[in-house]
Amino acid sequence: MILCVCLSPAVDVTYHVDHLHPSGTTRVRELTERPGGKAVNVARVLHRLGEPTHLVAPAGGGTGDQLRHGLAAAGLAATLVDSGHPTRRTVTVVQRDGAEPTTLVEPASLDCWPAVVAAVDAALADADVLVVSGSVPEGVPADGLATLVSAGRRRSLPVLVDTHGPWLPSALGAGATVVKPNAYELAATTGDDDPVRAARTLARFSGATVVASLGENGVVAATAGGVWEARPAAVLAGNPVGAGDALVAGLARELLRDPQSARHPDRMLHDAVALSAAAVLSPEAGDVDPAQHVEQRDGVVVRALDGAR
Amino acid sequence: MILCVCLSPAVDVTYHVDHLHPSGTTRVRELTERPGGKAVNVARVLHRLGEPTHLVAPAGGGTGDQLRHGLAAAGLAATLVDSGHPTRRTVTVVQRDGAEPTTLVEPASLDCWPAVVAAVDAALADADVLVVSGSVPEGVPADGLATLVSAGRRRSLPVLVDTHGPWLPSALGAGATVVKPNAYELAATTGDDDPVRAARTLARFSGATVVASLGENGVVAATAGGVWEARPAAVLAGNPVGAGDALVAGLARELLRDPQSARHPDRMLHDAVALSAAAVLSPEAGDVDPAQHVEQRDGVVVRALDGAR
Repeated sequence: MILCVCLSPAVDVTYHVDHLHPSGTTRVRELTERPGGKAVNVARVLHRLGEPTHLVAPAGGGTGDQLRHGLAAAGLAATLVDSGHPTRRTVTVVQRDGAEPTTLVEPASLDCWPAVVAAVDAALADADVLVVSGSVPEGVPADGLATLVSAGRRRSLPVLVDTHGPWLPSALGAGATVVKPNAYELAATTGDDDPVRAARTLARFSGATVVASLGENGVVAATAGGVWEARPAAVLAGNPVGAGDALVAGLARELLRDPQSARHPDRMLHDAVALSAAAVLSPEAGDVDPAQHVEQRDGVVVRALDGAR
Repeated sequence: MILCVCLSPAVDVTYHVDHLHPSGTTRVRELTERPGGKAVNVARVLHRLGEPTHLVAPAGGGTGDQLRHGLAAAGLAATLVDSGHPTRRTVTVVQRDGAEPTTLVEPASLDCWPAVVAAVDAALADADVLVVSGSVPEGVPADGLATLVSAGRRRSLPVLVDTHGPWLPSALGAGATVVKPNAYELAATTGDDDPVRAARTLARFSGATVVASLGENGVVAATAGGVWEARPAAVLAGNPVGAGDALVAGLARELLRDPQSARHPDRMLHDAVALSAAAVLSPEAGDVDPAQHVEQRDGVVVRALDGAR
């Protein structure tokens, strides 16, 4: 089972409007609402592919109830820990004229850290892979992410982390197996704007496998032993929201099949990049069509860069 | 008891942000959430003044639970009818730079009309005044507002209606005692942009008392017998949101004290306009400070216009 830990889950609300009137009143034509947050999106993709998953997340308030109902409706198995704070919402306003969406993100906080750690520990008993993904809310201690990563490593599980800011080095220091920064997070962590060099540096210093998602430029993966790049067959027109989460889902799935695959990113990347491409092509953000996933797999090109074995 | 019927209640969410980024991502610094919808706001003001009130409203989904909790926390007695649809939200984004707020309004609908009518009928047994205020959601039949007004009139209660569109003439046709259009609604209903003339026309044709709120220009009231205007002591700087609901609350309170006061707007207006002024001066939208209400009362000027007795 792939255990997905989401410290900042959300109720993602999408408003479809004709036109957003700043400093005015806008009527919402239609709205959708579903559970969100990066690890929730990862779990949703894995569930869609038939992989066994379990989610651990804090939840509270009326929005926490909405999260619970949404997860149940999606068939996602979850342990929700009473967070003492209402679950945050995100509100995305989509205009009919095709302008870029406008997003409002509520702050997240929790007041239940020991209970989250206990719930993760309990769920780890049945886990084969641990995924920790998303931002870290107020109320998590400075060594919080390290605690979760260590819990997984103590059980010799592969641990995959997608986060940002000081939490990324903290996860690496605790022995994360794979980290998935994007280009911005990679540059912010290493101080190096060249993603290939930065990924290599981070991998060498940490011993982890670094898989950096670079949007249209595909993916760069580095271990202490080498650097690879992977691209889909073509630059894809579609919805990039959720492509990073689908990439994480793909990596987690490879780690479930073979815990050693983190040492061989060339094998791991093929399927994960195809999954990410399928997410870009999906009409619904973050969803994947399994048939599209299979189709994309043929086109992915993985190439060893300098120094790769 | 003043019975307030709210067919379109809402959970009013306010986001405080530094700056709203259209087509970008905006972090919410702080948020507040409370029950909203016009009749809910009327009931809140009445409750604040110590008047006995009861609310009837449809509610559903997770947002319906939030509405229920919010009403209980505010001490507002309510009968909530399961609506079969999630209660709508409104989202208001307030920027630190003082720009006008941006508001998003979700659509409202209900699937429980007979149950709403039954709940109103039951609550009317203990009511002295009936207030029906706010927009009318999808799912209410064309004669819906007339049904509610008739139910109150059958019990010889004064019925006060604040609504818009075709619902306003429908309420008048069913015998509403007082209607409270704003300048826009008054012009749209009568086709006459002159509010004094339009209010008089509407009052003469319907037999109702028409109290039109004209923002900074105060209030115009008309009966078949005359026209009055009322203004606070000075043009007030403050938050006009909720001033109309406070005016309705003030009118309802006068009708509770003396059901015949609708025939004498000059008496009714004094206190109601002071209450509306107190709402403008309140830091929280739609709230009133009873001390401020008393203070404003001295300054209100009510003046008979042509033809008033």
